[in-house]
Amino acid sequence: MELARRHLVQPWPTAGEIGAETRSLIGEGEGIYITDSDGKRLIDGPAGMWCVNVGHRREELARVMYEQAMQLSYNTPWYTMNEASAVLAGRIAGHAPGDLNQVFFTTGGSSAVESALRFMQFYNNVRGRPEKKLILSRGGAYHGSTYLSASLNGRPRDRDWMDGADDLVIKLSSPDPFRRPAGMSIAAFADSLVAEFEETVKRVGAEKIGAFVGEPVQASGGVIVPPENYLPRIRKICRDNDILYVSDEVVTGFGRLGHVFASEEAFGIEPDIITFAKGVTSGYFPLGGMVVSERLLEELRRSNHPTAMYAHGLTYSSHPVGCAVALKNLDLLEGGILAHARAVTPYFQARLKTLEELPLVGEVRGLGLMACVDCVADRESRNPLELDRNVGMRIDAHCHELGLLVRPLINMCVMSPPLTITKEQIDDMVSILREGISRTMDELRKEGVWRG
Amino acid sequence: MELARRHLVQPWPTAGEIGAETRSLIGEGEGIYITDSDGKRLIDGPAGMWCVNVGHRREELARVMYEQAMQLSYNTPWYTMNEASAVLAGRIAGHAPGDLNQVFFTTGGSSAVESALRFMQFYNNVRGRPEKKLILSRGGAYHGSTYLSASLNGRPRDRDWMDGADDLVIKLSSPDPFRRPAGMSIAAFADSLVAEFEETVKRVGAEKIGAFVGEPVQASGGVIVPPENYLPRIRKICRDNDILYVSDEVVTGFGRLGHVFASEEAFGIEPDIITFAKGVTSGYFPLGGMVVSERLLEELRRSNHPTAMYAHGLTYSSHPVGCAVALKNLDLLEGGILAHARAVTPYFQARLKTLEELPLVGEVRGLGLMACVDCVADRESRNPLELDRNVGMRIDAHCHELGLLVRPLINMCVMSPPLTITKEQIDDMVSILREGISRTMDELRKEGVWRG
Repeated sequence: MELARRHLVQPWPTAGEIGAETRSLIGEGEGIYITDSDGKRLIDGPAGMWCVNVGHRREELARVMYEQAMQLSYNTPWYTMNEASAVLAGRIAGHAPGDLNQVFFTTGGSSAVESALRFMQFYNNVRGRPEKKLILSRGGAYHGSTYLSASLNGRPRDRDWMDGADDLVIKLSSPDPFRRPAGMSIAAFADSLVAEFEETVKRVGAEKIGAFVGEPVQASGGVIVPPENYLPRIRKICRDNDILYVSDEVVTGFGRLGHVFASEEAFGIEPDIITFAKGVTSGYFPLGGMVVSERLLEELRRSNHPTAMYAHGLTYSSHPVGCAVALKNLDLLEGGILAHARAVTPYFQARLKTLEELPLVGEVRGLGLMACVDCVADRESRNPLELDRNVGMRIDAHCHELGLLVRPLINMCVMSPPLTITKEQIDDMVSILREGISRTMDELRKEGVWRG
Repeated sequence: MELARRHLVQPWPTAGEIGAETRSLIGEGEGIYITDSDGKRLIDGPAGMWCVNVGHRREELARVMYEQAMQLSYNTPWYTMNEASAVLAGRIAGHAPGDLNQVFFTTGGSSAVESALRFMQFYNNVRGRPEKKLILSRGGAYHGSTYLSASLNGRPRDRDWMDGADDLVIKLSSPDPFRRPAGMSIAAFADSLVAEFEETVKRVGAEKIGAFVGEPVQASGGVIVPPENYLPRIRKICRDNDILYVSDEVVTGFGRLGHVFASEEAFGIEPDIITFAKGVTSGYFPLGGMVVSERLLEELRRSNHPTAMYAHGLTYSSHPVGCAVALKNLDLLEGGILAHARAVTPYFQARLKTLEELPLVGEVRGLGLMACVDCVADRESRNPLELDRNVGMRIDAHCHELGLLVRPLINMCVMSPPLTITKEQIDDMVSILREGISRTMDELRKEGVWRG
């Protein structure tokens, strides 16, 4: 703890605490559980960071890391290649919709999104339309933590003190039905989102817009499930205007919604590019990437600039150990975990939904094995709990005491456990969360900051 | 091979070949050797991508991956931490110069540089000088493959078809003594570089410049060893003008120059931030990061904006498996490999220097266990071989035949083998390289494109 306080800079620190902060020390993991340094066993509610999809301590994954490292631990992807990356690319392509047949590997979600955006810029440079580069993103979005990928982020505090490439990005509304304008039906709300998109393309000019980037379900924005048929309508506008549709499946991919990719299977869309990370290795190894439409690559191959170079790639692109881990992880997903996730999803969502009985809870929403408990000061106005923005942190503290790690997001608690979670474990999780919220309500009432 | 051709997008492809290309398939590694799919054993001349510092198939590293994955394979660094990352941060801080006591972990070099640049932006926002953001970089530089980090790159083909944040970056001259202006002494060349730096600061205004980012030895630019005392003079200008000095040690760190960090031990400078990656895990696991001056963090902690958030961090920041691998890798380096690297360096440089006998070779230069064989059409003009820009590829092809993987860079061949290389293995490497260059000379003469 002392070493951490003195030498480790934690991610997302505040200026007041940067470099002088410690967080809960975790000693080990097993299945859906992690154990803190006091020996307390916790349900890993967020599955790490939406990533430990097959659960902790999978001996198969640990073993494949050892075996691949003993065979070939690294080869430069600049001049050489390895078998695991080629086999993995083929298997991922087999799960991707339409002609998304080609895979480029990176080290995670941020670099996957950077790859897609830099690909779009390159593609339009080669095709002779260097002005077609603007990127459409949305409020509530989260796409990464590099300068360009973070420029797409739509949550205010992600950007308050950070710089971004604002002249490259246009922000649209979050497709958040819960906080749609008062009195508007969900169908009318969907129409308004589509109209906003169309009007933006018209106003700015399709010849200036290179890509739309969107999560099928906005994850860190609070598990925002968009209105029915909204994504296919946006997809159509992109196709009609030659705007690349980048579906960011860093969170939704590899089982979170019961499928390897959710774009087509859950939402009926065929994007131009899918970005992925996290679940692809269940967090055991930093790996991410993008699946790209064969059509786009064919257009490049047939262009008049055959020697133009997509000068992009990371030291760890196509890493043999990461790709071997991902292959074994995919075996586990295909071998029963995807089916289990689909089977247990209705129970997971229904049990969590019962928390709406609590007056602090404005809505419980979700899809697949991801859900959000959204706390409000007042159910009528649906405003977040303004009196205490740290309500998520309070619930997390109580739940930690009771044996559950929560992912607190200001006024929201996100639940996205390992996909192996059983019905009994879901019961445990929900009852702890119910008790944690109840204790928080008592606290807030006692402090007189909430009258619910 | 067929799977790769159909489904794997290689890094740095050309438009004409993107998604339809294969590269040499590597099956296994051991020590300084890798073996291709034909069973041919090759000396790994570039140590993967300047990274396999302790060599291939180190059982200790494979085992620690297994063991850490079986204990704790992942924990979210947003809310929790693990022991390995805290211990590693302490050990890295112990090797860093001055008050560089705090470590932030990422997944590689690009994200390390992004972290440093986004930190500089945040730092100046919090300190109330949001206009102090420009970044000084140099020709010949290589700092990464994300939009912002790649904007610093100074090699033409890295940027020809790619977009960058050009309004944020000012490019200075490469400190390349070999291609200094004709008739100028090296001392005068160093003076001219320092004068250019000073004049740029004066012209643009120190109040607009946030950081200088530089590799102590420009690696991918062709192993450019700067003139004596140039780096300390640049360091002083930065300090005098409150410009953060970011020393990019992604290549030079973790043993390449015989030390964990080279900034102070090889060049006598104490930067504000050191970025690292590659050798920190010898390429077994994607890990990188930055070491930051305690003074900068203290300034932030004492600022008037304690709740301002450095909204930056990756899913895989402080990854327990990566940090455990790095700890074991550091054991190996400290346990003899650093000393071996220092001991074998004079022999390595002297043997390679003999290649200057060959008329195609304009210069062999280097430092520590990194060197570059720079081929020229004409020794007088020191121009690269304009008649055949792929001379490096030709040498590589011959050397592959003879048992050596080369890192060809247009007209240059880079040698940066695993640090465990012995004198006998250096002899093998140099004699293969000599034969490969000789065969290339014969070829070029036969084709009539070179008259050397």
